[in-house]
Amino acid sequence: MRNRYFSQDPAQNRVALALYESVVNLPLVCPHGHVDPRLFAEPDYQFGSPVDLLIIPDHYIFRMLYSQGVSLDELGIPPSNDPPRSPRSSGGSVPDKSGRDFKAESLDHRAIWQRVCDHWRLFRATPTGIWLRDELADVFGIELKLNSANAMAIYDAIEDTLQRPEFRPRALFERFNIEVLATTDAAADTLAHHKAIRDSGWGGRIIPTFRPDAVVNIDAPGWRENIDRLSDVSGVTVSDFSSYIHALEQRRDFFKAMGATASDHAALTAYTVFLAHSDAEAIFQRALQGEASEKDAARFTGHMLVEMARMSSEDGLVMQLHIGAWRNHNWEIYAQYGPDMGADIPIRGEFTKNLKPLLDRFGNLRDMTLVLFNLDETTYSRELAPLAGHYPIVRLGPPWWFFDSWLGMTRFLDAVVETAGIYNLAGFNDDTRAYPSIPARHDVWRRVCADWLAGQLLRGFIDEEDAYAMIRALAYDLAKQTYRLDG
Amino acid sequence: MRNRYFSQDPAQNRVALALYESVVNLPLVCPHGHVDPRLFAEPDYQFGSPVDLLIIPDHYIFRMLYSQGVSLDELGIPPSNDPPRSPRSSGGSVPDKSGRDFKAESLDHRAIWQRVCDHWRLFRATPTGIWLRDELADVFGIELKLNSANAMAIYDAIEDTLQRPEFRPRALFERFNIEVLATTDAAADTLAHHKAIRDSGWGGRIIPTFRPDAVVNIDAPGWRENIDRLSDVSGVTVSDFSSYIHALEQRRDFFKAMGATASDHAALTAYTVFLAHSDAEAIFQRALQGEASEKDAARFTGHMLVEMARMSSEDGLVMQLHIGAWRNHNWEIYAQYGPDMGADIPIRGEFTKNLKPLLDRFGNLRDMTLVLFNLDETTYSRELAPLAGHYPIVRLGPPWWFFDSWLGMTRFLDAVVETAGIYNLAGFNDDTRAYPSIPARHDVWRRVCADWLAGQLLRGFIDEEDAYAMIRALAYDLAKQTYRLDG
Amino acid sequence: MRNRYFSQDPAQNRVALALYESVVNLPLVCPHGHVDPRLFAEPDYQFGSPVDLLIIPDHYIFRMLYSQGVSLDELGIPPSNDPPRSPRSSGGSVPDKSGRDFKAESLDHRAIWQRVCDHWRLFRATPTGIWLRDELADVFGIELKLNSANAMAIYDAIEDTLQRPEFRPRALFERFNIEVLATTDAAADTLAHHKAIRDSGWGGRIIPTFRPDAVVNIDAPGWRENIDRLSDVSGVTVSDFSSYIHALEQRRDFFKAMGATASDHAALTAYTVFLAHSDAEAIFQRALQGEASEKDAARFTGHMLVEMARMSSEDGLVMQLHIGAWRNHNWEIYAQYGPDMGADIPIRGEFTKNLKPLLDRFGNLRDMTLVLFNLDETTYSRELAPLAGHYPIVRLGPPWWFFDSWLGMTRFLDAVVETAGIYNLAGFNDDTRAYPSIPARHDVWRRVCADWLAGQLLRGFIDEEDAYAMIRALAYDLAKQTYRLDG
Repeated sequence: MRNRYFSQDPAQNRVALALYESVVNLPLVCPHGHVDPRLFAEPDYQFGSPVDLLIIPDHYIFRMLYSQGVSLDELGIPPSNDPPRSPRSSGGSVPDKSGRDFKAESLDHRAIWQRVCDHWRLFRATPTGIWLRDELADVFGIELKLNSANAMAIYDAIEDTLQRPEFRPRALFERFNIEVLATTDAAADTLAHHKAIRDSGWGGRIIPTFRPDAVVNIDAPGWRENIDRLSDVSGVTVSDFSSYIHALEQRRDFFKAMGATASDHAALTAYTVFLAHSDAEAIFQRALQGEASEKDAARFTGHMLVEMARMSSEDGLVMQLHIGAWRNHNWEIYAQYGPDMGADIPIRGEFTKNLKPLLDRFGNLRDMTLVLFNLDETTYSRELAPLAGHYPIVRLGPPWWFFDSWLGMTRFLDAVVETAGIYNLAGFNDDTRAYPSIPARHDVWRRVCADWLAGQLLRGFIDEEDAYAMIRALAYDLAKQTYRLDG
Repeated sequence: MRNRYFSQDPAQNRVALALYESVVNLPLVCPHGHVDPRLFAEPDYQFGSPVDLLIIPDHYIFRMLYSQGVSLDELGIPPSNDPPRSPRSSGGSVPDKSGRDFKAESLDHRAIWQRVCDHWRLFRATPTGIWLRDELADVFGIELKLNSANAMAIYDAIEDTLQRPEFRPRALFERFNIEVLATTDAAADTLAHHKAIRDSGWGGRIIPTFRPDAVVNIDAPGWRENIDRLSDVSGVTVSDFSSYIHALEQRRDFFKAMGATASDHAALTAYTVFLAHSDAEAIFQRALQGEASEKDAARFTGHMLVEMARMSSEDGLVMQLHIGAWRNHNWEIYAQYGPDMGADIPIRGEFTKNLKPLLDRFGNLRDMTLVLFNLDETTYSRELAPLAGHYPIVRLGPPWWFFDSWLGMTRFLDAVVETAGIYNLAGFNDDTRAYPSIPARHDVWRRVCADWLAGQLLRGFIDEEDAYAMIRALAYDLAKQTYRLDG
Repeated sequence: MRNRYFSQDPAQNRVALALYESVVNLPLVCPHGHVDPRLFAEPDYQFGSPVDLLIIPDHYIFRMLYSQGVSLDELGIPPSNDPPRSPRSSGGSVPDKSGRDFKAESLDHRAIWQRVCDHWRLFRATPTGIWLRDELADVFGIELKLNSANAMAIYDAIEDTLQRPEFRPRALFERFNIEVLATTDAAADTLAHHKAIRDSGWGGRIIPTFRPDAVVNIDAPGWRENIDRLSDVSGVTVSDFSSYIHALEQRRDFFKAMGATASDHAALTAYTVFLAHSDAEAIFQRALQGEASEKDAARFTGHMLVEMARMSSEDGLVMQLHIGAWRNHNWEIYAQYGPDMGADIPIRGEFTKNLKPLLDRFGNLRDMTLVLFNLDETTYSRELAPLAGHYPIVRLGPPWWFFDSWLGMTRFLDAVVETAGIYNLAGFNDDTRAYPSIPARHDVWRRVCADWLAGQLLRGFIDEEDAYAMIRALAYDLAKQTYRLDG
């Protein structure tokens, strides 16, 4: 249905469709996400089985099945301390979300797919259900609704389709009309895949994003080893806080040279603090010795957010801040399967107090951008919109994660636009590992915006000129401008 | 109006009505509430006056009148330290909410009813107003709108009706089409009324629920006496923490034998903690001596929630947790009239951190159920839906108390379904003392769900098959399954 | 459009319009705002330029422009430590929001107006945009949409209009059909303008409001000088806590004699505490010595809120409490331009615990009124509605500041009415410095209420009698009654 998801009110439905159709052919701008760059580094990269592609990397899907008593084993999720398994499916190879190569037997995958389809009712009225339905229809041409009876037929159809040359990642990139796709990459990453893409002469714009969490959060598992890796790749021997900062600056320069326009930072809270150099040095030395406390870790992260803002003010990388997820809340699942298993649970957010030390230093700059993301909707109207409607550096990222949904987006627009307008928003980003779901995700955002603006127009808050300008900004311009992607 | 409360959009109104009518004749499942079992223990129990039945036990009604300057005395609310009053109305007898027998003069009751009707405008657009209107119409056949002029005529009509045999509680139980009704009972309760119901041979299913707050919260008034009562009824002399635990286990077994399928726990916060046995023992001994501190009380309750989860994991009672009400906030009212006087005020809720100790131990079980209730709507999308969409034991109770309302339910569905789906919800429960309001309360829930699903269907998020399956689940199946009532 | 902003559903639109039209001619009751009384003290007061009138005093406008890189200098905002500038525009004189006289050159003002119009898209879908559009149309007769091309023509039209005698403040007061307008005045204010208004014989009712923050918050800049001023105007030499209380009581009496019916109190949080006299005295003495700590300041404010409640319980002034704004969050802007520069950012609110000491003492009074305002929408349903639906003294102020908007008001009604009804609300107040925007602001409130009630009526929650009574109460009666303005 061309007018799917829009309000059932006939007038609003009609206006929403017209607004939507005015932007439906605009390219997709993807300034933040987690697609593996390797998909594009090998010209003939072929996806694995339907389960490799659609189930195993998608913690939205398996968390829901897990909540209803399906074990992760039954869904083909590999235990975390297993050695990399040998390929088991007949298709190609897909790196799983933790970077391990993982293939299950084709036969296993059929059983997994059947199991997912047997439970498909769980996804009724969820974005996961909608994305997969839209993706099957629009990418794979499968209009059937998943159920126990048709599971194998659909599996076969997807499997066949994935063999075809037009389903190679690069071909899909063009078919999806993606203008630019940003990946997310560790500070110590060599960006070898990005280099290979460049060297290949292929014209698709795949750019890295500088994500230093693994070397910034001194309580992250493997932090010490990550520091050594940072020394290696940067050519700066990290032995104290100054050389550490220097190495990070070197990496940012390298990322910029490789096309990056943004950094990304994840933290439990938005806490920032500006430490004296000697204090930062002392914490850093304790961390090197493995003697840092929990409080050290919080203060160090808080200080490093200010340092990173300082670097952004100098090198122009757009700073993204994602806060509010208690990672790996389920220790048993974490112990057995590792991170990113659908067990991250949000906590309350706070920005007004927490961000003040950073904003005191950099909030009034005209040529810096800070994009805020968060998992506590109460901050939208109370803190985020007022901050974005005042500080020149602040832009609001689109609704994140659990709120990347029809109602989540609608609540976001309802909560922030009256205070911050739309021009302090960062547009949309899909934030996904699930490459073939990208068009479906952007489509939902564009439809939400069209429907919301249609309501505003029909009620007389805005006029047609406004509505058409706003839908274009929300669908395309704001993302491009915010992330400095026109250069 | 058959289609009352539904969206005024003609298409949505029509679809909502069809969905609603597909479940309107399903029995009512009432797995959590506060109806007095005595109503069913005496075969010919007769309700008192209209005021006994509809006003005095309903703190939703008198809190609103109180907020506008009507004193509780003027509404017939008895002071808390009064000796039990002798029957004053011509009708039967109804225990008030604190378990005291209370009857006011019939004449007084007419004045009280007049006073309530004189202020009836206060309930415009409130669930209390809607429930009473629907109850008068559907249970008593009174279609008039309450006002000063018709107050006495309506009083007479209700009073007359209450005399009739078909208005005995057991007759209404059948007329209301209640499949099962759970009461809420103190751990030290002998369940004498439940026993009498069983022994009477009447077929109505009235089951107890194990509610140990009075012996768990060591700062509760009368805790020490309650412990003695626990010793008496359990036959286990409670002298230390081990015998205390043993006595509680004995009571749970007794409740199970009497038909209970669930326990219920109320606390100010969801704080849980796992104490060493020696720490629990030390606090318990201080409590026995009357020397426990406020911090002791919080830690003890936190530990006992974990203990109760452990017991649930063993005996299979569904664990319910109601958090967030600052009980008896108005000390003057509490001092004069006692608890449950409409003066409980919510505070902020938090689950992600608070429940972790409990979830670390029991969160991944497949055969345990924890139903969460709460009075802070901000936790719906931020914490509750993500927890329910991951942990196998977690289910979300329906909107509680102030949120047991059209808009409260709609916000709940909007906030949780996209993340948790509907199959991690516990369906509906009416949580009421007001027995004749039960059908009206379930009716509002069923109508909200029908209207919400109609919107989802017309917008294309779900199809007809989904919508009809979902309305049935929300109206009936989920409550029955969650509370293990099919056995 | 007569039916602007109403739901596009034809039935709801029609009913909303009918409800709206039933109140459209009722006078405006303005019990809380920040209009300068001087406008009415001089019979022939003339507004300055369009920029003096519409831009410079309106931090809603310049914060948004600032957030998009326009400096405050470019908008004519004077640095805070400048001596008062001489008049620069050809028109009259308007005091800016900090009480300084400020006029920019007419030529400058044209450039400023052009700049604002060049950025007018920023206000799409914001209340600021809507108010100015409605104000230009309804007050100035200008139906054009602001843009770069028509900026100067519109400037000329406004400038011309402002010369006309019917655009003097007193003439507008009558044209706007304002029944009463309350200003907000420091405790040490002599109310000279109010006196001049009275003495002039003009019939417009302009009343003061007692706002003692500057002498209550001991950490406020200039507190010590303000105490001296308090001594001067009260005739009570303030040397200790008792004389301080006495001086405040004297001022309240004076304000009452000058027509005040209310006091107003702003604080970061709703924290209240009741200190022993000796503790209050000790803090007061430390404050006089300039030695009070941050904690002293918080406790003193908390205690003074209780003291002010005590005074209200005695003298009958309605007590207003505005909490939740972190004032002057942007220190650079504060240092350069002073307060009220659009850089106040909300923080989380809490009432249940914080207000208890005050409510314990005065919450059950029948003849006292406490009106609560707040910038954290999560408190609406969780704390404010339950408090208002129980305590006789509590009324809820309308949505404040960022939430004085179509969606903000709608969310407020959705969140509070089911629990508190409408009769525990304080109706509307415009809380504005922007005098000519008053009718537009009241109009939005009346339209929101009409639309909301139309939805309630069409869905069958209320009937016509209810709806017409409720729209009148919300539009007019509740404000008048709550603020005791009928006397």
